Amino acid sequence: MSNSNKQTSSISEKAGISPPEITNISAINQIKSKRKQQPTSQELIDGILDGNRTSLSRAITLIESTNPDHFDKAGEVIQGCLSHANKSIRIGITGVPGVGKSTFIEAFGKHLTQLGKKVAVLAVDPSSSLSHGSILGDKTRMEELVKDENAFIRPSASGETLGGVARKTRETIILCEAAGFDTIIIETVGVGQSETAVHSMVDFFLLLKISGAGDELQGIKRGIMEMADAIVINKADGDNVKKANQAKVEFNRALHLFPPKKSNWQPKVTTCSSITKDGISEVWNTISDYFEMTKETGFFQEKRNEQNHFWMMETINEQLKQNFYNQPEIISLLEENKKAVQNNEISSFAAASELLKLYFNKGAKVQSDKGSK
Amino acid sequence: MSNSNKQTSSISEKAGISPPEITNISAINQIKSKRKQQPTSQELIDGILDGNRTSLSRAITLIESTNPDHFDKAGEVIQGCLSHANKSIRIGITGVPGVGKSTFIEAFGKHLTQLGKKVAVLAVDPSSSLSHGSILGDKTRMEELVKDENAFIRPSASGETLGGVARKTRETIILCEAAGFDTIIIETVGVGQSETAVHSMVDFFLLLKISGAGDELQGIKRGIMEMADAIVINKADGDNVKKANQAKVEFNRALHLFPPKKSNWQPKVTTCSSITKDGISEVWNTISDYFEMTKETGFFQEKRNEQNHFWMMETINEQLKQNFYNQPEIISLLEENKKAVQNNEISSFAAASELLKLYFNKGAKVQSDKGSK
Repeated sequence: MSNSNKQTSSISEKAGISPPEITNISAINQIKSKRKQQPTSQELIDGILDGNRTSLSRAITLIESTNPDHFDKAGEVIQGCLSHANKSIRIGITGVPGVGKSTFIEAFGKHLTQLGKKVAVLAVDPSSSLSHGSILGDKTRMEELVKDENAFIRPSASGETLGGVARKTRETIILCEAAGFDTIIIETVGVGQSETAVHSMVDFFLLLKISGAGDELQGIKRGIMEMADAIVINKADGDNVKKANQAKVEFNRALHLFPPKKSNWQPKVTTCSSITKDGISEVWNTISDYFEMTKETGFFQEKRNEQNHFWMMETINEQLKQNFYNQPEIISLLEENKKAVQNNEISSFAAASELLKLYFNKGAKVQSDKGSK
Repeated sequence: MSNSNKQTSSISEKAGISPPEITNISAINQIKSKRKQQPTSQELIDGILDGNRTSLSRAITLIESTNPDHFDKAGEVIQGCLSHANKSIRIGITGVPGVGKSTFIEAFGKHLTQLGKKVAVLAVDPSSSLSHGSILGDKTRMEELVKDENAFIRPSASGETLGGVARKTRETIILCEAAGFDTIIIETVGVGQSETAVHSMVDFFLLLKISGAGDELQGIKRGIMEMADAIVINKADGDNVKKANQAKVEFNRALHLFPPKKSNWQPKVTTCSSITKDGISEVWNTISDYFEMTKETGFFQEKRNEQNHFWMMETINEQLKQNFYNQPEIISLLEENKKAVQNNEISSFAAASELLKLYFNKGAKVQSDKGSK
């Protein structure tokens, strides 16, 4: 194969065919070199702080990259943006498929931009790498918002673990805030632990519901209702209005069964229609009340500090586990010991002990400076 | 100092005073040697399998010992008992102080021994090492049961971490089962995560409540009600009967708000009086129904397998963390990074990265066989 075959760009041509005379070679080379030229981390930082959306998108792509060469650069960009971040409010929105999350976020987001806010919409969907994006994948579902120059929509990062997706989203929040977005909306679907992860990175957590036949509360995943700062019953339009109001009463009663929240905030239940826009401004009023109250009590900052601390610890703990469970020797002994524990041939603790001994005594051990045996 | 000063036993005397003639020296020596003679692990195993309570108590003391010399021996005893364990039902009982846990367990335990059961009562109370046993510490609160030869009561193991207390309790369950106890009751108070730990080591989880003024459901810790397989409203006697029945209705309604349990068991709410004994046999009937159903569906064994697996993994993960967080270098850098994260000088993830690099690159590193940089 000839060297020229390596050129696959659409602006190059196969060897043997001479370029037509009208082609401006120097222009081609200029375009090529511009394509290859990656902005430096400082250029990205400057761009983000200027509110440049291209810089923001490129930096997020760096964060999401699995190419190890990009890690350090992404780290530099985040570090450079950090002192300019944190000046937003972060709202988590969850709801099972079918409650109309996209249309709600579209209506809600438009309401916010009309109030002069700059809105970034992100998503946490660990399943998206398999399903190729079940949420926000199709931006056309937010037709209006996507065209709004005060809104920025980014689909979920993909990743094998929720921890990975969560980290990337947390870092993306920092960049969006540094780029001047003052309201960050993070959407998630009720899949696995993703709500808990989102709850741990937002200030306010909103559960979106619709009224349905039968018991309104069936099917809510354990714990989700306890995390909610507001429950919004969507699709309260047309024939649905009465049912939505009934659901509101039922949710309100259920919420009162829970003990008071650490924030002392009493979760609110409201209804809305993403079509007629009825109730959309009330949702924002509720959220504003929450921020007014928690900023006054100091709970707002307290929670953010806790979240920062939580994610540092969480990252450490996850990495410690990953290192352990990825050792080939551990993988095979773990398989054996799982079976032995299942068959009551060894206690859970003895089985764990064996594995830990293997790990720490293996060639190099972290605790070796304490003296080895 | 003379050598004789080392003798501090009450059956020895100070040098210089000759023993009175009536003292039988050989008898004294016999007693002394017997005192020093510790049973071997095989002797303990044999004793436990014979149902000998002294052997059982001694073996539990070994498990609870913080003396590293006792670890291996305790391990041998557990290993020797393991194949004889697992033939019991394990019931967790929780409730805030004041609901009458001790009197309930006394009445319930007596009911069980009268049915011919052998009942072991253990406790998980991580605070007991500080408070010197807030539960079961005072066995006199179970006056009847403590004298019952078919009951065995053991206060909570003490320990610095819940994980440590939980491990010791799990191992004690094995020994009690091997000693022939067919019904294991594990008591816990609503402190921190102890309910979750107990929930992860029992087949059936019972929440004890009393009726009170106002909203019955206030003050129940998040998640506890979701874990309960039964809620028993205690002190349903005298003037309390009506209130207890009202509470029953309210709890029943609340329980129906939760989605179905994995076991498909619909949690029951009953009332009882530990004084009049009304309702005590109904509690046992509920529990029997549960075991009949879950053994038939296979959920019983499935849950035990999951618990065994859970505790193996939990032990590994806890130990990995302990090793990390106890490194002196990590302790000091962690302090620094916590502050830096708090002040937004560094992101949570960058802070975690730094700590992990320090840990794994330090002299000896576990992942060194993958090539170091």
